[in-house]
Amino acid sequence: MELIKSHLFIRFKLNPPRILALGFMLLIIIGALLLNLPIASQNGESIGFINALFTSASAVCVTGLVVVNTATHWTLFGQTVIILLIQMGGLGIMTMATIVAMISGRKISLKERLVIKEQLNQETLSGLVKLTKYVIYLTLFIEGIGALFLSIKFIPQFGLIKGIWFSVFHAVSAFCNAGFDITGNSLMDYNNSVLVMLTVASLIVLGGIGFGVILDVVRNRKWRKLSLHSKLAISFTVFLIFFGTIIFYILESNNPLTMQEFTFKEKTLASLFASITPRTAGFNSIDVAGMNQSSTLLTIILMFIGGSPGSTAGGVKTVTMLVLIISTISIIKGERDVEVFKRRIPYETIFKSIAIIMIGIALVFFVTFILTLTEDQEFLNILFETTSAFGTVGLSRGITPELSNAGKLILTLTMYSGRVGPLTLAFAVGYKEEHKRFRYAEGNITVG
Amino acid sequence: MELIKSHLFIRFKLNPPRILALGFMLLIIIGALLLNLPIASQNGESIGFINALFTSASAVCVTGLVVVNTATHWTLFGQTVIILLIQMGGLGIMTMATIVAMISGRKISLKERLVIKEQLNQETLSGLVKLTKYVIYLTLFIEGIGALFLSIKFIPQFGLIKGIWFSVFHAVSAFCNAGFDITGNSLMDYNNSVLVMLTVASLIVLGGIGFGVILDVVRNRKWRKLSLHSKLAISFTVFLIFFGTIIFYILESNNPLTMQEFTFKEKTLASLFASITPRTAGFNSIDVAGMNQSSTLLTIILMFIGGSPGSTAGGVKTVTMLVLIISTISIIKGERDVEVFKRRIPYETIFKSIAIIMIGIALVFFVTFILTLTEDQEFLNILFETTSAFGTVGLSRGITPELSNAGKLILTLTMYSGRVGPLTLAFAVGYKEEHKRFRYAEGNITVG
Ligand SMILES: [K+]
Ligand SMILES: [K+]
Repeated sequence: MELIKSHLFIRFKLNPPRILALGFMLLIIIGALLLNLPIASQNGESIGFINALFTSASAVCVTGLVVVNTATHWTLFGQTVIILLIQMGGLGIMTMATIVAMISGRKISLKERLVIKEQLNQETLSGLVKLTKYVIYLTLFIEGIGALFLSIKFIPQFGLIKGIWFSVFHAVSAFCNAGFDITGNSLMDYNNSVLVMLTVASLIVLGGIGFGVILDVVRNRKWRKLSLHSKLAISFTVFLIFFGTIIFYILESNNPLTMQEFTFKEKTLASLFASITPRTAGFNSIDVAGMNQSSTLLTIILMFIGGSPGSTAGGVKTVTMLVLIISTISIIKGERDVEVFKRRIPYETIFKSIAIIMIGIALVFFVTFILTLTEDQEFLNILFETTSAFGTVGLSRGITPELSNAGKLILTLTMYSGRVGPLTLAFAVGYKEEHKRFRYAEGNITVG
Repeated sequence: MELIKSHLFIRFKLNPPRILALGFMLLIIIGALLLNLPIASQNGESIGFINALFTSASAVCVTGLVVVNTATHWTLFGQTVIILLIQMGGLGIMTMATIVAMISGRKISLKERLVIKEQLNQETLSGLVKLTKYVIYLTLFIEGIGALFLSIKFIPQFGLIKGIWFSVFHAVSAFCNAGFDITGNSLMDYNNSVLVMLTVASLIVLGGIGFGVILDVVRNRKWRKLSLHSKLAISFTVFLIFFGTIIFYILESNNPLTMQEFTFKEKTLASLFASITPRTAGFNSIDVAGMNQSSTLLTIILMFIGGSPGSTAGGVKTVTMLVLIISTISIIKGERDVEVFKRRIPYETIFKSIAIIMIGIALVFFVTFILTLTEDQEFLNILFETTSAFGTVGLSRGITPELSNAGKLILTLTMYSGRVGPLTLAFAVGYKEEHKRFRYAEGNITVG
């Protein structure tokens, strides 16, 4: 009897991933209720719950897919709700919980620390409160700098108040990799502004590289002193941005629907930005619907990979993909160990990467399959939209406002799953703490 | 100096996968030269080397993608070359080498046995010659029975000689999972013939389940006596066929371009066949180009999975995919061992499955990406064509004859890679026999 009770307790208790999943869900619902209010919409009428839910999920999950134009549909109240949801989503609901705990002076329990640990992907419990403070200060600091740079462009253009509001909104939206804009046209009017493009691009990269990596770099400064994790995250991110820029330049520079009319400088800026934004910001400086099929496929792959772990970005994450690529190469070479930068990658890490990527692929294809049934859209656009939702990217080839209600709900769930993380969600479902004490004999299977 | 020489010897010597890869290449080139002859084409003019090469690769790799209609373009000579290439490709060039060896009475070397072992995916070397004989007898026996059944329909329809030729051609093409037809219209005129549909479907399934599994079933008869490999291959194949049939029925039964006009019997037959043919036969009884996007995506996934290891089928293989799915579930559950049917799956097998599937995904997306640049076709059709070539399936949404020369060459290479097997090919490139004697320390990486 005691055994059963204890077993049930283990089965249903709130483990960190479950708390995370529930926290995000709660925030989305609160956001939906607020955005559903008539005062949130310019026309004074409620937008309807499904649209409010979609928008709230898109903000909390820092996705940026929108069913209505953020600039023209929402009131200042609505936009403020959205940017607050983005900031809370971006920092992570658990980091927010720590703030609340600090403000109210309540002691943080070990379980809460574990939750934060899971959220930040840090391996040590000690100094977590300190770290959380760091994260918040750093976020506000970087967003502040970003807003300052943007204001150089926006204040002359929109006047002081509106200029500051635009600068703050887009700095937060960029650093949180949210991709929401209140220009009405994303960054397509700022193609030729090196200041705006590079500021936003820098905010995206910093927001998507992971707090841990930023702290590591700030503390250690030298490449060889960095952790293996930081080395992998930085090198793969640089690799993806560099080659992405070159390939986008080649593929799109003569496309009349995107860059053909651009100068060399604008083409380079636009290619760089097209390479950075799938990591997983969602701003666009060229017309995504006008991109040709090859660039679209490349964007889909980059969106699926996404940013780095422990960051505001989505996707399966750079390091996860890199671990799988390195592992595959090692297997092909017939090597016993998977090694990188003179370190051995633990089997556990490899298995975790596999699970994340397999679930990611399965989820993207399953949702795409369902949407081919509910939506009357081209396959490539559906695949793009699904990957964008899963990776919480927010880029779209224009089909978001045309989605059916079923489609909106499915993508809401996809954004949620993409944000909480395929594995975190999976752990939250299948988590178990006990293992069997005996092992079966190995079976002989031929594969391939 | 001695060390360097020995190292070079290990590096460049012919290991089994390399012999396989070269053998297939040689057969394709011989076939291409024969099909390039004017006497092979009905119009008495050479088809041109690229088209001959494509057709030969399609036959040897038992793919079935065609740039010209097999029924109307080729002479009897051409068709005979094609069916011989199919039979040799299907049995495996190395099994053929054994036949040659047996006929000439030459002793089979250990290296040749190793090559055959690799080809048949058998774990033991003993009795390999016996096994090879078995494979050939069994193939001819099953194809004979199949031809007999088909002749019941084809002899009355086409007369004795042409009827037998049609029966033999399609029985061989079906069992080898080749998908070439000389009806001119695949099996679309036999929608309502239970005899033809079920005979061909049975040949496809038997050809795609693997010789090892057939032998295991013939020898042991009882489920619990079967090897773990046979259990996995059979259960996943049955699962895929069963659910595939139901889903295709639901998705296509009201599609005016495919099944809408069919009777219930014809719809059921057509759904069953649509579920079986991606494993990886390539015959079609409904218009593939008319299928809606959801069924097309389902077909792409089934084609990617393909048949079972050690068979005439292509794809990453059922068991490979199943191992990865089971492993992912175990990882999610946080279990130490990956278990199935009361056996533990060795880590080596899991890693091999990962490598095969990762290379498969990478190859399909890479080729699709290149084809979006060389071909002016819809993305979904390109993805379909690429997966069909990679899985050596042969289904097409109609773009094969419209391909550019670059596209034809790329798909020729894709068929070849798909047949030789992603991992076999990969091993052939990166094979090495020595391991380092020291291990690096484990590194700490956060993924997901
Ligand atoms: K985003
Ligand atoms: K085939």
